[in-house]
Amino acid sequence: MATHALILAGGAGTRFWPASRARRPKQLLPLTSAQPLLLETIDRIRDRVGGGANVLIASGATVVKATREAVPELREDQILIEPVARNTAPCIGWGVATIARRDPEAVVIVLPSDHYIADRERFQGALDVAIESAREGHITTIGIQPTRAETGYGYIELAPGEGPVRDVVRFVEKPSHEIAKAYVASGKHLWNAGMFIFRAKDMLAAIREHLPALADGLDEIDRAAQRGDELAEVAQRFPSFPAVSIDVGVIEKVRGLRVVPANIGWSDVGSWEAAWQLAEHDANGNAIQGADTTLVESQGNIVVDLRSDRASQGRLIALVGVSDLVIVETDDALLVVPRERAQDVKYVVEELRSKRRERHL
Amino acid sequence: MATHALILAGGAGTRFWPASRARRPKQLLPLTSAQPLLLETIDRIRDRVGGGANVLIASGATVVKATREAVPELREDQILIEPVARNTAPCIGWGVATIARRDPEAVVIVLPSDHYIADRERFQGALDVAIESAREGHITTIGIQPTRAETGYGYIELAPGEGPVRDVVRFVEKPSHEIAKAYVASGKHLWNAGMFIFRAKDMLAAIREHLPALADGLDEIDRAAQRGDELAEVAQRFPSFPAVSIDVGVIEKVRGLRVVPANIGWSDVGSWEAAWQLAEHDANGNAIQGADTTLVESQGNIVVDLRSDRASQGRLIALVGVSDLVIVETDDALLVVPRERAQDVKYVVEELRSKRRERHL
Repeated sequence: MATHALILAGGAGTRFWPASRARRPKQLLPLTSAQPLLLETIDRIRDRVGGGANVLIASGATVVKATREAVPELREDQILIEPVARNTAPCIGWGVATIARRDPEAVVIVLPSDHYIADRERFQGALDVAIESAREGHITTIGIQPTRAETGYGYIELAPGEGPVRDVVRFVEKPSHEIAKAYVASGKHLWNAGMFIFRAKDMLAAIREHLPALADGLDEIDRAAQRGDELAEVAQRFPSFPAVSIDVGVIEKVRGLRVVPANIGWSDVGSWEAAWQLAEHDANGNAIQGADTTLVESQGNIVVDLRSDRASQGRLIALVGVSDLVIVETDDALLVVPRERAQDVKYVVEELRSKRRERHL
Repeated sequence: MATHALILAGGAGTRFWPASRARRPKQLLPLTSAQPLLLETIDRIRDRVGGGANVLIASGATVVKATREAVPELREDQILIEPVARNTAPCIGWGVATIARRDPEAVVIVLPSDHYIADRERFQGALDVAIESAREGHITTIGIQPTRAETGYGYIELAPGEGPVRDVVRFVEKPSHEIAKAYVASGKHLWNAGMFIFRAKDMLAAIREHLPALADGLDEIDRAAQRGDELAEVAQRFPSFPAVSIDVGVIEKVRGLRVVPANIGWSDVGSWEAAWQLAEHDANGNAIQGADTTLVESQGNIVVDLRSDRASQGRLIALVGVSDLVIVETDDALLVVPRERAQDVKYVVEELRSKRRERHL
């Protein structure tokens, strides 16, 4: 019963523009350390899965080249390339089926590739509990103890009880602020961080029960794999798969679901504001990443220099009397936005799309 | 009685860092139009001096190369190179002596090279009055009608009288705010903008009277010029000349001084704030110079892109929700400072000096 990791790295967001682009999404950026988030994710579970050989990356056609460059240790067959984006259920199904072909008893750890966890040891402790629970036949998730009334996340309601792993009553998607406040106060609700641990065969059975069309398609892909024709079958089948998340399509309907409550310093690194919060700061609260700066009476800024020829050019970023700004330089763009408006970077991306400025997207 | 221009372009300031550098000072920057301020200055007086051939530029060793590139029409002997900076009296003396060798009756227009004048026609009208006054033997200045109680300028007090050219009572250097307010209210005071018009022989006589050591030195340079040895003599003499401004050393002591009051939209373009005021604005008050921008809910900013390979690189500057900032990109530096703190760019320059970062100075 080996343990494998299936890391979801096909996403492409816009919240870290101009650093994140269609071909270099958030998980490939060094937002919280000198390493890309994807590599941090792999390193966190590396010794729980017996090294990098048991890691499978679900990637997309647009980002696969940059992903290979970011994680050169991976063999070609460790990267699954979704031909089209179909949310998480189809690609998790494909990944789990791939692992199950060799070992249906294998435990699979599904993880997002673009989150941050401050307390690696506690995370690994929670993971060990979840792996044990999965081995007992329970699809298990790790739930994050909420620290604020966040309305953008899904919540997991705990059944009454004790111990490191608990039964789940239900999932609630993005509650109102009032309800979120009550959840945080209750002590009975956790954030759903998209981390799922299960035996391969248990997830395939759950998919067969709750998403039978996907299960049939995965059977066809299995047969094609035996013929040595897997990728052609995937290219043909994938577009017809239901575009549904594993949460909504399977997890929320599963009986016997369990959760490991965890207080591990988790963040989904949702914006430049979050990146500032997670980064190291100087005495004036400035977070400087890769930039050569001269700061005069400037506080609380995040300055990120991702220009490729920076070192050789000796470029300097000088701030005078500015506070709480996000300043990001790439080879072909500069962004300046107040930290508290970091979410509004999406409007720049929208405008670039409407002007069909592909090179900046 | 030809008319000549002597344009003072040897200065090097720090207020437009990172655009202005030791080798590319303010007068060589396109701050108020697509042309460098120096070229704008030449164009304003070109038809008053019979074309570019009667223009003499007083430059310095550090900036002469960039000056030649900015004004390629000039012959080599139209640029005087001060071997060391000695304020304005020595270089004006040398320039006037140079013109006087061929034509002591010539009228000389002395102008700073780094100012802005919105109303070219009115300026030329005032200049015509001043040239006429100079031909009558009066050293004449053009005085700017003050629009605010500026304490950083010198003021010229008018004698009672009428007409387009008036006698001067006295000069006052940088008054207190109270006094400056009274000056603006009085209607009898003008700003000294450093524009002087005179016959060459009258200025040489005034220098002989008020700065006799300089006059003696200029005589030696004249004799050396007759021997074909002018530059060696200048290199030897200049360091011993008194480092004094023409205002303090000569003009303020001259008898019969006249002034032409002028309301011509003058600015000394003293900071990025001034550059913003003088530039064209979009509907949201943003001044964009040479930059490819995407602006979202951003007002009152000045964005200057002086990168040499900008066009070919297709670089984009995106602002979201920021107001009243100065943002300047050059090949090796980025500056971000609130417009109202634009003067504080000097602190960056001071820090770079203390760190001996010559390449950014």
